[in-house]
Amino acid sequence: MAEWRRDILTGRWVIIAAERGRRPLDFKAEPEGRAGGACPLCPGHERETPPEIAAYRSPHTSPNTPGWQVRVVPNKFPAVRGGGAVTIATRGIYQTMPGIGAHEMVIDAPEHVRGFEHLSPEQVAAVLRMWQERCRALRRLSWIKYIQVFKNVGRAAGASLEHTHSQIIALPLVPDEIRAELAGVAAHVQAKGECSLCAMLRQELEDGSRTVAHGRHVVFFAPFASRFPFELWAVPRVHQDDFALAGEPAVRELAYLLRDVLDRLAGLLGNPPYNLVLHTAPVNWAYDHYHWHLEVLPRLAVPAGFEFGTGHYINPVAPEAAARYLREE
Amino acid sequence: MAEWRRDILTGRWVIIAAERGRRPLDFKAEPEGRAGGACPLCPGHERETPPEIAAYRSPHTSPNTPGWQVRVVPNKFPAVRGGGAVTIATRGIYQTMPGIGAHEMVIDAPEHVRGFEHLSPEQVAAVLRMWQERCRALRRLSWIKYIQVFKNVGRAAGASLEHTHSQIIALPLVPDEIRAELAGVAAHVQAKGECSLCAMLRQELEDGSRTVAHGRHVVFFAPFASRFPFELWAVPRVHQDDFALAGEPAVRELAYLLRDVLDRLAGLLGNPPYNLVLHTAPVNWAYDHYHWHLEVLPRLAVPAGFEFGTGHYINPVAPEAAARYLREE
Repeated sequence: MAEWRRDILTGRWVIIAAERGRRPLDFKAEPEGRAGGACPLCPGHERETPPEIAAYRSPHTSPNTPGWQVRVVPNKFPAVRGGGAVTIATRGIYQTMPGIGAHEMVIDAPEHVRGFEHLSPEQVAAVLRMWQERCRALRRLSWIKYIQVFKNVGRAAGASLEHTHSQIIALPLVPDEIRAELAGVAAHVQAKGECSLCAMLRQELEDGSRTVAHGRHVVFFAPFASRFPFELWAVPRVHQDDFALAGEPAVRELAYLLRDVLDRLAGLLGNPPYNLVLHTAPVNWAYDHYHWHLEVLPRLAVPAGFEFGTGHYINPVAPEAAARYLREE
Repeated sequence: MAEWRRDILTGRWVIIAAERGRRPLDFKAEPEGRAGGACPLCPGHERETPPEIAAYRSPHTSPNTPGWQVRVVPNKFPAVRGGGAVTIATRGIYQTMPGIGAHEMVIDAPEHVRGFEHLSPEQVAAVLRMWQERCRALRRLSWIKYIQVFKNVGRAAGASLEHTHSQIIALPLVPDEIRAELAGVAAHVQAKGECSLCAMLRQELEDGSRTVAHGRHVVFFAPFASRFPFELWAVPRVHQDDFALAGEPAVRELAYLLRDVLDRLAGLLGNPPYNLVLHTAPVNWAYDHYHWHLEVLPRLAVPAGFEFGTGHYINPVAPEAAARYLREE
């Protein structure tokens, strides 16, 4: 059973997921895996994953057989699992919580390709729709407070399987990062009468130096305080707290622009590893304001001693330069 | 000129160091460098670095010539530089500060080796003494508020040169991570009448399941809420806020144990990349309590979408297991 543990020095909670634990030797030379040649996520290998939770599939095909376009399975090595109540226990001066939650894997497409940039816009849109569907399903568990959707592409971005997939981890608490953003938005609303993302969007569109792509529904820009070289945020023009509420035209446009932007990043930077991180409103939890967005985090610079020591990032590429390169690609 | 920029969503300050800026192509295939074959940090290549700031060298040898044991030079691509006052400027809704500070490189030894595990305990002790000396020198600048000492070993831990070296970045502000720790210690003192590191040390020594090495002055243990597999903290037994105040016996013992622990990590895990991060008290800044410590962060798991989305780490190895493996190595 995984457990949360609190660092009494910083107050930070960490998940110790020793069930996923590997022996020291396993860390020595870990290839980006096809599990010995055959990819467990490819069609025809459905028995190598836990049974599917949801799928978009062709009519008259059965679960756990080929014929799917997007397929969701429980993560084979879950970081959290099980349900129940969150109670804090103590061990001497330390505190722990049970590592409950859900950990799902979304197999984005049958094709054995690396990321969204190799799929069609329609395929990317189907994945985003599945994210929405799983968020709506998981929030029915009243003890779930936050649903983290993310995607790791490339070994240096944390992917342990090369077949394009995304992940969903549902948690019984609102994470630190989202609490910080909720507080930031609330403070901005109180001080300026406007959500910080709405204010950012207005200034970015007026200024233009950091925008990369925009449509009727969504704007992609390199944030003013980018932590990573070529970091991009996709922000909906409408002030909407919950990604699961985004309508079909917005989802289709987001998919189209995201695929296009990832394709430009791949061309400009030689298929860099990257993470996609969805920031959306908590569920089953009271808050005033939020504005969902999707972060694209290329992993070209490695967070190192300075970042871990101070909590601050050093970014060697100005976001204005990154945006210019991407617009011209 | 580098600048700090504040993310208005989270309140987080980031350093945009575009002077270090590389063009997109530079990111495509960046080897861990000897700068085209010859290492600029090896003896005989002293002219390839900026002129030295300090060194331990053999009698009758001149600055910027061979004969040194430890050599400190300004970083050729500084993340921060220059001095002055910290003033916050605005750009529309955003805030910036000038990227002032000092960025030094400590060339740990003349030998072209990867890390402390390849040096003698005496050589490691000399590097730690140089860290202390530079901290004492840099604090004389009254606008410096924090001095971050760290070491990146291996490409995946952020090293861009393979010759063993450490880095010192002096900042005009107290970083977020240190503020969080200062607050944590102060809260613990107020609630329990004792510093959190002192309390941790007592419980770890009583329990024993997470301790790896200890001497008269310093204890190495895997912290209860380890973020990384095989993370270790070296904590002095005495409640001392400032690393620069550590006496010669403590420095010698820390060097000996650190070298030994890094050697065990290298053997157990096949020379993993790692960061060393010193946490010490702010300078020229008021605070009540602190307890310096040195963090050893092996980079076996990659922080990815979940970590960036939530701010929480998933660690697949229980610290108790990590400590047991390291004790037995």
